[in-house]
Amino acid sequence: MLNLNELYSNRAKRNAGSFLRQIFPRTRAPGVINFAGGLPNPDFFPVEPIIAATEKAMRADGRDTLQYGLTEGLLGLREWIAARYERQGLKVSPDQILITNGSQQGIDLVGRVFLDPGDKMVIEAPGYMSAIQSFAMYEPQFIGVGLSDEGIVIDELAEVLKNNRVKLMETCPSFQNPSGLAYSTRTRERLAALVSQHNTLVVEDDPYAELRFMGSETKSLQAYLGEQVITLGSFSKIVAPGFRLGWTVASPEITRKLILAKQLVDIHTNLFAQRVLLEYLRDGNIDGHINQMRGVYLSQRNAMVDAMTRYFPPETTFTKPEGGMFVWVTLPEDADAMALFNLSMDTEKVAFVPGLPFYTDGKGKNQMRLSFSTQSPEKIDEGMKRLGRVISRYLDGPSGQ
Amino acid sequence: MLNLNELYSNRAKRNAGSFLRQIFPRTRAPGVINFAGGLPNPDFFPVEPIIAATEKAMRADGRDTLQYGLTEGLLGLREWIAARYERQGLKVSPDQILITNGSQQGIDLVGRVFLDPGDKMVIEAPGYMSAIQSFAMYEPQFIGVGLSDEGIVIDELAEVLKNNRVKLMETCPSFQNPSGLAYSTRTRERLAALVSQHNTLVVEDDPYAELRFMGSETKSLQAYLGEQVITLGSFSKIVAPGFRLGWTVASPEITRKLILAKQLVDIHTNLFAQRVLLEYLRDGNIDGHINQMRGVYLSQRNAMVDAMTRYFPPETTFTKPEGGMFVWVTLPEDADAMALFNLSMDTEKVAFVPGLPFYTDGKGKNQMRLSFSTQSPEKIDEGMKRLGRVISRYLDGPSGQ
Repeated sequence: MLNLNELYSNRAKRNAGSFLRQIFPRTRAPGVINFAGGLPNPDFFPVEPIIAATEKAMRADGRDTLQYGLTEGLLGLREWIAARYERQGLKVSPDQILITNGSQQGIDLVGRVFLDPGDKMVIEAPGYMSAIQSFAMYEPQFIGVGLSDEGIVIDELAEVLKNNRVKLMETCPSFQNPSGLAYSTRTRERLAALVSQHNTLVVEDDPYAELRFMGSETKSLQAYLGEQVITLGSFSKIVAPGFRLGWTVASPEITRKLILAKQLVDIHTNLFAQRVLLEYLRDGNIDGHINQMRGVYLSQRNAMVDAMTRYFPPETTFTKPEGGMFVWVTLPEDADAMALFNLSMDTEKVAFVPGLPFYTDGKGKNQMRLSFSTQSPEKIDEGMKRLGRVISRYLDGPSGQ
Repeated sequence: MLNLNELYSNRAKRNAGSFLRQIFPRTRAPGVINFAGGLPNPDFFPVEPIIAATEKAMRADGRDTLQYGLTEGLLGLREWIAARYERQGLKVSPDQILITNGSQQGIDLVGRVFLDPGDKMVIEAPGYMSAIQSFAMYEPQFIGVGLSDEGIVIDELAEVLKNNRVKLMETCPSFQNPSGLAYSTRTRERLAALVSQHNTLVVEDDPYAELRFMGSETKSLQAYLGEQVITLGSFSKIVAPGFRLGWTVASPEITRKLILAKQLVDIHTNLFAQRVLLEYLRDGNIDGHINQMRGVYLSQRNAMVDAMTRYFPPETTFTKPEGGMFVWVTLPEDADAMALFNLSMDTEKVAFVPGLPFYTDGKGKNQMRLSFSTQSPEKIDEGMKRLGRVISRYLDGPSGQ
């Protein structure tokens, strides 16, 4: 007598799955040069140091490491994270930190703790697709605010905050996924002055902050706005995603609420992985490791920006990121990046992500995200040459306009 | 201008935190003999084999193991789980399995995918506290159905299913937390015959199934009811909880829905831990390991049941579990186990969990849960002697009646 349609929640019925999940199988076909992914470069994964760290951690604390742990996460790891923020000029204590299953879980927990159906929430336009989809499960009303080369457009945000009771604001201020853009110091200051006048929490989704390879350092939004900010961090982009280890930084009160939420969700984050990672961080040369990544990502970013300048038709524009993993391309307004994706895959075997899913209001049809993180400069040059050809053909062709 | 009370979701305001979290700090004080926990015995944690498994796994697949993985989990691990069910006579394929962060996450995902506010849901009375609290976040209407020594009371369940549109039914049919009771084969058969006539899904929360140390084997409810059952499994009780690795088994269609939900929650489960555990399972002697645990838990269970028989006043009754980690004690109807807990901690330093939080309807005031999993037979005997004294004193005293 099973009739599943009568049993699924409305939430489950609304969850159509990720767009990336739909296009990714195609992008992994043999011969494809793939700029669609958002993966860190596996050349940097510290395989041998992790073996050594495991042995050391397990010999020191094996039984405790394999037992149930605290919901908030391993104290040593929270202390390590706090000390790293302190080095960057942000004073936080371990009881402001909660270890999560990657920063994606931080997003979900924030939605759980703050969003009721109909609550208004600002997102960047374009914004991080998985965050938008995750928050959407809690049925907020999204309001998109645009981005410029300096970050979120403050005047537009001011209008939105003036005219709406905005509970939450999702930002990715450093080398955003998908655009690669970063908020300038001036934007951060103006944002802080504005938001401090409203009862609005800022979610600072910050997995790429340490991956700056050029330009001037900026400070975390939490350094400006304190308890009005929940910062989400991650080891995925600086060590390895396979650990699924991220964290939240917030006021002790908000952190307690996030902990209570997480306790019912999965009790605590994998303690074995936390303990091994902590041993690696203590013994390893994480700064040297990150510096090496920055150097490689810079050469890959330069290869992509240079090749786009050389091979793309002049009607296209693109961001020139100072860090992170992504470049964001804008085609002429009436172009359709999904049609271009199909043409590109069919004729030149180059993959990227069309821009539509990074918005909630139908914009982005003529935009696309490319990641430079996993391809060599040579592959990037070859890929951009092919993609430039496809774009030119598309824009010149009958379907192009 | 921060006013958090205006910002928290109704869900977060309802989440008062776990009762266990409130009493656990007291139970860990020095000198306390602690039967309150629900922890597996750390003597069995395979510390050295895990070191060896890590080295082998990382040398074989280090880069893949540290990269992002599939939401559904590592294929090899899903194949291992499927093969183990097949050995027990239940045919499932790897695409019916989703790897979760412990079976607690399975509970939360089931709530996400099936529960809208007001939906009716059957729970066992008493039932597993963390499951009830986790489901409560999705605002179902709980209906408790009692337990006998044979498992859930079928006649009572039949009435409930006849008179209510029940979407979900949470069960822990093998050595339940908190009661230690198991559904007999006859109860399983009757349950299947009854439930198959209703459009109701059974959640079979089954972390203790492999910990049977006496009596006859029973089959998973999924063997009787197929796609009408979602089984939740866990490595926490048979290998180690620190991995936070569990799984769901359901029809391929339901599994797809659970995967879509998990993708937005945390993308995927810790791949490093999955890969290391798989290597351990392939190389290790897991059957010998579980057999050894059964032997030790049996001796601990016998020590507890024998000592209760010897030391507890005749007005008390208790379950005599054939597996798992728990014994459930019932005091005379007007006794208050919370008052007894305070008396016991103050005078004899013996800890247990009072029964109230295992019900949603105020029952259980005169009941208590004791775990025998982490104490030696000698400590158990001493603890029961002390607890028997406290119970006698309490029942004889002015506050007792």
